[in-house]
Amino acid sequence: MGRIVVEVMPKPEILDPQGKAIGTGLERLGLSGFTGVRQGKLFHLTVEGEVTADALAQAREAAASLLSNPVIEDVVSVREADDAEASR
Amino acid sequence: MGRIVVEVMPKPEILDPQGKAIGTGLERLGLSGFTGVRQGKLFHLTVEGEVTADALAQAREAAASLLSNPVIEDVVSVREADDAEASR
Repeated sequence: MGRIVVEVMPKPEILDPQGKAIGTGLERLGLSGFTGVRQGKLFHLTVEGEVTADALAQAREAAASLLSNPVIEDVVSVREADDAEASR
Repeated sequence: MGRIVVEVMPKPEILDPQGKAIGTGLERLGLSGFTGVRQGKLFHLTVEGEVTADALAQAREAAASLLSNPVIEDVVSVREADDAEASR
């Protein structure tokens, strides 16, 4: 069983209030080493068998059409899962 | 400016209704090559200067305490951003 990982983040120029709130929360926990936090979305798409070029192409299409909103989000990466991600 | 990426996914045994809904949506779009979809969360934490071992340790603590709910989610990875992620 293969797995493809899709990473989606809000565009840099878009405000991310949830990220801001997390940043405040981190400071309250004493974790003050960060200058910024942004939250995005992560998708694991599983395919039967190996991850083929065709499956990656379908995943790219899915990322552009359904998994992200191109007005406010960027697809940062569409890639085969690494070992830690695939073993879950 | 350094950037740390934190990946959080629902635990394998936890139902993911949003992932299921996305799977149905993909089939409706004719993207039927996937046997499963799961949605997780992605965080970009920025730090001043380089990503140090101390910053990664703080990020791991943040991931365990605030960025994930350990009852239903796993922290899949806490790592320095790769080039595509860092350039955003």
